[in-house]
Amino acid sequence: MRPAKINLLVGTDVVDNESLAKLAKHSNIYRLEDIAEDRLGDTLPVIDALLIFSWPKQLTPENLQKMTRLKFLQSILAGVNHIPFANLNKGATVSSNAGAYSDEVGEYAWALLLAAAKRVVQFHVSLRQEKWTLRRTLDTGTEVTILHDKVLGIIGFGGIGTSVARIATGFGMRISAFSRKTKHVKGVRVYSGEKGLEVLLGESDALVLALPLTNQTTRIINRERLAQMKSTAVLVNVARGELVDEKAMYDHLVANPNFRYATDVWWYKESRESLKTDYPFLSLPNFIGTPHVSGPSGSATGRPVKAAVENTIRFLEGLKPKNIVDPREYLTSYPY
Amino acid sequence: MRPAKINLLVGTDVVDNESLAKLAKHSNIYRLEDIAEDRLGDTLPVIDALLIFSWPKQLTPENLQKMTRLKFLQSILAGVNHIPFANLNKGATVSSNAGAYSDEVGEYAWALLLAAAKRVVQFHVSLRQEKWTLRRTLDTGTEVTILHDKVLGIIGFGGIGTSVARIATGFGMRISAFSRKTKHVKGVRVYSGEKGLEVLLGESDALVLALPLTNQTTRIINRERLAQMKSTAVLVNVARGELVDEKAMYDHLVANPNFRYATDVWWYKESRESLKTDYPFLSLPNFIGTPHVSGPSGSATGRPVKAAVENTIRFLEGLKPKNIVDPREYLTSYPY
Repeated sequence: MRPAKINLLVGTDVVDNESLAKLAKHSNIYRLEDIAEDRLGDTLPVIDALLIFSWPKQLTPENLQKMTRLKFLQSILAGVNHIPFANLNKGATVSSNAGAYSDEVGEYAWALLLAAAKRVVQFHVSLRQEKWTLRRTLDTGTEVTILHDKVLGIIGFGGIGTSVARIATGFGMRISAFSRKTKHVKGVRVYSGEKGLEVLLGESDALVLALPLTNQTTRIINRERLAQMKSTAVLVNVARGELVDEKAMYDHLVANPNFRYATDVWWYKESRESLKTDYPFLSLPNFIGTPHVSGPSGSATGRPVKAAVENTIRFLEGLKPKNIVDPREYLTSYPY
Repeated sequence: MRPAKINLLVGTDVVDNESLAKLAKHSNIYRLEDIAEDRLGDTLPVIDALLIFSWPKQLTPENLQKMTRLKFLQSILAGVNHIPFANLNKGATVSSNAGAYSDEVGEYAWALLLAAAKRVVQFHVSLRQEKWTLRRTLDTGTEVTILHDKVLGIIGFGGIGTSVARIATGFGMRISAFSRKTKHVKGVRVYSGEKGLEVLLGESDALVLALPLTNQTTRIINRERLAQMKSTAVLVNVARGELVDEKAMYDHLVANPNFRYATDVWWYKESRESLKTDYPFLSLPNFIGTPHVSGPSGSATGRPVKAAVENTIRFLEGLKPKNIVDPREYLTSYPY
């Protein structure tokens, strides 16, 4: 039998007071920031549920081992690849916040796609360097890509991918999507399987990565798959840096000056996303990088938090939470 | 009575051979580049029609004075503000190429709008300067603007404005447009008149300038109108630099760090568009500039040329050409 009130640990300060009040109706709330370090050892063993944003640094491997009653973990971040599944209490259910940032991230994907296709950053930077060339005297290799009637390939067709597709229709693009589930969506050609991915990569003029990072998707964009793309393609990453092989991408950008990679997400160094890369991407004219700004913004924090809180309340009320992930896809052991 | 064959001067090398062959069926073609300088004085007086891209440097005020038979001038560029109307043969009809670049320029407007709204250039440049800040530690004043449900104001609702509006629906924006003609377009709130413009400026979160440059529109965006806009608005210019007052814009950007101006078009210096500005716009983080690249691109040249050639053939066949402009709106005397 479920106890009358569940002990919920809130491991982030992004949850607003209104949401905390709602959670308090269904649980005893413990706020991680309020617990003194020497009290953690007493508190963690009684915790049933955990609500987090990024992984809290207090939950070290030793402390995590003490959470023997943990049954439910809710992430406010859309992705859950930062969660140390291998170190969690056996049988704990983990819910992602899939879809919570879809509109924001979909818009941002288009900002990167257009900046790369139209070479906005490249032109702006060259003007800053006082290279005063109006259109008529531009060098070759600086053509602006027209999107109308071209093919957009969306890799990963969940919330973000669907948002990216909706925007693409306004540009009059033909839309292809890669999904592990077979889907029928009006106006979208949906591919599955290895062969389907190869066809999509080959036919797309612009591509957006919108996959979760799992065992199956880590470095899905490797040397071989880059070679299957058009040499003039624009590839956008708003998902996770580790979906792409770093060295393969650098070599590909150097060898194909008309291929463009625009990313908001970065490779992991010592198990954390880092802006420091192994290769000098930022010196390449066909690379655009921004510091993981697509998701939680000022006006966006509210809605994703509410979605995560609502899902936590489902668990607290004894209902089945949404967005439960399969831990076998995330072998991740403790990364920090 | 119209002569059997009209003498057409082609003053640009962007017209393809197929188009030249079509024109040759209806006219005697003279190619400006083939006429020796000392033969111009004999040729120009017999010319009935003129097809140009940018204004040909051979057509000096003295030479233009000799074109006493000129009845029709077709521009391949969409705008005609580069044509010295005051120096043209009285009664000559001038046709713009309005709409010919609408899709390309509409896409480009969105590239600038998103680059500014999402601060893509600003973030990329700061990473290049090795300011390693991932999202969570960003300074204030670097918020990413969410477009969903916000108001887009389109100033000038012709071909480009309509293309910009079509794309906006994919982003779930509410669309307002300023047009001198009252129009009824589904899903668009259309304003006219001075008061209508003021309302649109005040309610818009993002604005796109898509007006022709005429006597009425020169510096339409002045100090007073900038003050009517939201201090956090994003203003995009894909039309003509001279629609905006240069000093007023510079002062406004300095005084309002969250206002953003992204432009592909530049102010005129010595009667020509120039990348050299009177104020150091490129040093401002809230300014994005690109060197007039939105229109004629490799793949786009074909279609606009065909549109201009078709309209020229209308004239050659004795039909009324499309896109005839009112010369009273362009007092422009010889600018070079």
